[in-house]
Amino acid sequence: MSVVAKLIEIGHLVDPVMEEYLKRNLSKAFEEAVLHQIKTGGKRVRPALTLISCEACGGSKDDAMAAAAAIELTHNYSLILDDIIDHSEFRRNFPTVWKKYGLSTAILVAVHYRESISEALNDTLDPKLFNELLAKTIKILVDGERLDILFEQSGRQDEPYVIENRYKIVTLDDYLDMVYKKTGSLLQTACVFGALSAKASSEIINAFNIYGKNIGNAFQIGDDILDLFGEEKKIGKKVGKDIIEHKMGNILITLTLEEITNKKDRDLLISILRKDRVTDADVSKAIEIISKTNAKKRAENMRDKYVEEAIKAINILPESTAKNLLVELAKFISTREY
Amino acid sequence: MSVVAKLIEIGHLVDPVMEEYLKRNLSKAFEEAVLHQIKTGGKRVRPALTLISCEACGGSKDDAMAAAAAIELTHNYSLILDDIIDHSEFRRNFPTVWKKYGLSTAILVAVHYRESISEALNDTLDPKLFNELLAKTIKILVDGERLDILFEQSGRQDEPYVIENRYKIVTLDDYLDMVYKKTGSLLQTACVFGALSAKASSEIINAFNIYGKNIGNAFQIGDDILDLFGEEKKIGKKVGKDIIEHKMGNILITLTLEEITNKKDRDLLISILRKDRVTDADVSKAIEIISKTNAKKRAENMRDKYVEEAIKAINILPESTAKNLLVELAKFISTREY
Repeated sequence: MSVVAKLIEIGHLVDPVMEEYLKRNLSKAFEEAVLHQIKTGGKRVRPALTLISCEACGGSKDDAMAAAAAIELTHNYSLILDDIIDHSEFRRNFPTVWKKYGLSTAILVAVHYRESISEALNDTLDPKLFNELLAKTIKILVDGERLDILFEQSGRQDEPYVIENRYKIVTLDDYLDMVYKKTGSLLQTACVFGALSAKASSEIINAFNIYGKNIGNAFQIGDDILDLFGEEKKIGKKVGKDIIEHKMGNILITLTLEEITNKKDRDLLISILRKDRVTDADVSKAIEIISKTNAKKRAENMRDKYVEEAIKAINILPESTAKNLLVELAKFISTREY
Repeated sequence: MSVVAKLIEIGHLVDPVMEEYLKRNLSKAFEEAVLHQIKTGGKRVRPALTLISCEACGGSKDDAMAAAAAIELTHNYSLILDDIIDHSEFRRNFPTVWKKYGLSTAILVAVHYRESISEALNDTLDPKLFNELLAKTIKILVDGERLDILFEQSGRQDEPYVIENRYKIVTLDDYLDMVYKKTGSLLQTACVFGALSAKASSEIINAFNIYGKNIGNAFQIGDDILDLFGEEKKIGKKVGKDIIEHKMGNILITLTLEEITNKKDRDLLISILRKDRVTDADVSKAIEIISKTNAKKRAENMRDKYVEEAIKAINILPESTAKNLLVELAKFISTREY
């Protein structure tokens, strides 16, 4: 069984638990709309990390089940809202919540999710501590999403805050700050929730903080590379989606703009990102410009370095099947093609 | 000093406390957008209830300050989202958050508010208990907002859930269910948070549950009456806003439809509520139909009965300035003209 298959199997253990929290204080007439988001699937990587991290610290999966449910509910809460923000009509071949039920209903569903998260946190080992950590994590997620939007180079003409605060150029530091906030922080908290559920020492908590942050960076960099150089059949989406969505916050674009000396190419790449409507020819041209630089190689090296750092951090854990799974997962991020 | 002036003065004590929680884990570049909502003012009735209820149970205002901040942040969180849902462009003469900053930013601001609520709850006497109660309350609020939307008789053509689930007729039971959920539950929790902060007995907690629910019903019924029979100058908004917004969930409309025997008038009133665009003449006609029934008198009696019930419930409290203020507040609801 592949590491991904194992992860998916473990992660899906939270499904009935999430459903239980979502059904609390829920009117029957609202149930279908509320459950839609979690029924659209997902790989459940984050709750799997919570459960496996708990085991790697000597706990059992049950010790971390409420915490894992809170983490995956948080992820789904953010997806419901991200889909509204990004006007996304489909996710994993299902209509998104706002598309299927309408904007008002989607907002109400999201609010309901957030309260189910609170209910789940109340069933963790230390509600006050878990609460504090998740509140901080979600505030960081909000800031990551804010930056991700501000890194876009066009669109959102009806959004005054975005128009006034858009970034003209995204540096590597800006990029890494955004990626930590948008991806790393929740992966980090997923792992830390597992370790806390097993009453791990502060040294081990710290190791999971480093592991989570580094796989987050590695994962997102990998995602950015696949967005431009993946195979459409494998990644299940159009190549160059980030360019079509005007995102300067893709590692390959950031590195290209940092490195490029040919002024004409530089200006052309930026102008493509700023076009109202990006064509397939524009995407090909942008990829051609990026391919002339060392951006891809450098990004792959960065990704692999983050994977190494992640693995090194959890070296202090005693040997176990769970630990091996965490190592395998990190390694998979370096080689994945989807 | 009038009871309202006293309440406003006490309620505003939470302003710096709310600001402190909102500024936690907040980027400077996001601060203005986040603080906009609480800077637009508001009477701070809910946190005043929390602080006064705590005092009425022998506690001090400081004992309940974090709980009061959580309550008022919850109210403002719901307002940010309600304004999106209702396409409201102004609130108290200020542009609403989505209008001023854009939809995506408003959603992110709302999510940030929710985490500040969690942070405030963590500073209450019993985070787990307060957390549980507030999660339940917000889920109830969501359901109240859902019903309020479904009671509308027109509009929202782009919202499939609303179109499919709209109520054809709103009974008095439906109305009272919605009002408790949308208004009463948070007022109730505001009072209970105060009593809990003073470590009140379960008998007294129960008294506050009854007080809060009843002033909620009385307040909303009073609001509905003012919407159709208030003076525009005093209420600060157009008379008949509920009719313009197609709301069958106004007590006077509910009672009229329950009582009316003239089929022609009944059909006309419903058809006005279902018109795409409601004119001033339509509003006048609807008010004329309602005026021919006993709906207004009955609604006033209901309102006054709820006020009486509220006052009766807190009879068990020892005499104090705080208790008197709670009694005065309830009485004010029966006589207010704004």
